[in-house]
Amino acid sequence: MLTDPRFTIEVELTVPFHDVDMMGVVWHGNYFRYFEIAREALLNQFDYGYRQMKQSGYLWPVVDSQVKYRGVLRFEQRIRVRAELKEYQNRLRIDYQIFDLASGTRTTTAYTIQVAVEEKSQELCFVSPAILFQCLGVTP
Amino acid sequence: MLTDPRFTIEVELTVPFHDVDMMGVVWHGNYFRYFEIAREALLNQFDYGYRQMKQSGYLWPVVDSQVKYRGVLRFEQRIRVRAELKEYQNRLRIDYQIFDLASGTRTTTAYTIQVAVEEKSQELCFVSPAILFQCLGVTP
Amino acid sequence: MLTDPRFTIEVELTVPFHDVDMMGVVWHGNYFRYFEIAREALLNQFDYGYRQMKQSGYLWPVVDSQVKYRGVLRFEQRIRVRAELKEYQNRLRIDYQIFDLASGTRTTTAYTIQVAVEEKSQELCFVSPAILFQCLGVTP
Amino acid sequence: MLTDPRFTIEVELTVPFHDVDMMGVVWHGNYFRYFEIAREALLNQFDYGYRQMKQSGYLWPVVDSQVKYRGVLRFEQRIRVRAELKEYQNRLRIDYQIFDLASGTRTTTAYTIQVAVEEKSQELCFVSPAILFQCLGVTP
Repeated sequence: MLTDPRFTIEVELTVPFHDVDMMGVVWHGNYFRYFEIAREALLNQFDYGYRQMKQSGYLWPVVDSQVKYRGVLRFEQRIRVRAELKEYQNRLRIDYQIFDLASGTRTTTAYTIQVAVEEKSQELCFVSPAILFQCLGVTP
Repeated sequence: MLTDPRFTIEVELTVPFHDVDMMGVVWHGNYFRYFEIAREALLNQFDYGYRQMKQSGYLWPVVDSQVKYRGVLRFEQRIRVRAELKEYQNRLRIDYQIFDLASGTRTTTAYTIQVAVEEKSQELCFVSPAILFQCLGVTP
Repeated sequence: MLTDPRFTIEVELTVPFHDVDMMGVVWHGNYFRYFEIAREALLNQFDYGYRQMKQSGYLWPVVDSQVKYRGVLRFEQRIRVRAELKEYQNRLRIDYQIFDLASGTRTTTAYTIQVAVEEKSQELCFVSPAILFQCLGVTP
Repeated sequence: MLTDPRFTIEVELTVPFHDVDMMGVVWHGNYFRYFEIAREALLNQFDYGYRQMKQSGYLWPVVDSQVKYRGVLRFEQRIRVRAELKEYQNRLRIDYQIFDLASGTRTTTAYTIQVAVEEKSQELCFVSPAILFQCLGVTP
């Protein structure tokens, strides 16, 4: 079921000047901007982006992230960022891969894990809320 | 009255790595981080920082800004940022100066202008709200 | 001659989550990211982007900038950023306008001024270097 | 030997407005700014910060990072960031912990891993270069 094409998305980006540090490569903290653009595009495929999350009464803070920087990214490099939904039952795990657009070489792998927090009670949900399953079109 | 010492503040900062671009100098958009740190310290002297603004029912968006970059700033440079309240009757104008800490040379001058917007009505205030005058300890 | 279509460019962008502050609007310092993307696209039309600048032996630091924030920008807002080359003889002045894509409303006007600095001597050029005129296809 | 007090540092910071997102918490990618300020302070204890790295002929790109966000950070929160050198033989592993300054509660744990790349040859070093051991005052 995670083979549903809606569970994966790819976006193409160009590295802007202001993301590059004095070593001439994208500063490691700025990769999260690219992951976020891809993640938001992925979640919008299910009508469950940040706005809808908030409207549904849940916040989804990132609680864990890992990035493996296999190759550097440079100014004006054209990249393809792939985001894949990997888990949703108890938490939202999204995996990322960045590819150099010209060569197809994979430069980066990463993941983020988000958990639902009910906004009103500020309580952590140990099982993802029903609204997520509805949006994903899956049974819990 | 604008000679009241509370109408001026100075903060000392060190330029971090992630603010510097591939030309080896602080990227021009990142100066606003330094201005903001000084502005917030200035406004906190009057108990009218962002939190208090919001609690008072007003937002104060920046509507105009200018920066004159006279000299560059480099990684690990120690700087002193001075913020001065210049106008408050109808809008909040704050002027900024950045100095190299070691030499005292002034590298940057700037200003920001903010106007009050009543949060509930989203209406722009053509005269600053009473709460600002109270915090500043001035008569309108 | 400034009516040459290459002296103007427009780029379309979507406001990402990480540019928006806790007031729910794009933080005023982040507008420079949008201006920069448009400026770099404009300069690339002349083959005189950052890389070519550096290769030509000149740096072009921003020495002056002004922004008038007429309306706020919000998360996921679709915008069109127009950059226009306005001066080049002694300095590079580029004007910017941001428009809401849906309504066409202009939300922001701004400019940046850059001057040439010869990298080797670190000396400021009071007249723009010949390479700029060649790239622009104009006579000094 | 990793109990040498120079292998640990703590810095105190205040969360600035521009690091906080529209959910009212520090955006997850901005934590790397705090880690970097602490890391640079740590490396400066050994006279092997970014400048010295570059002067020594080696770049030290971050190749792996993980962050566990246990609690959120909010605007103006006072925090203490601890950085500890954990490995240096073949790579530089630094662990981070963020604590709320008022309560002492630990909100975040993280690590970064950097490897030496010889700048001239752009070749990855499988063993850390001699200059690192000299700076650390250890035998390889």
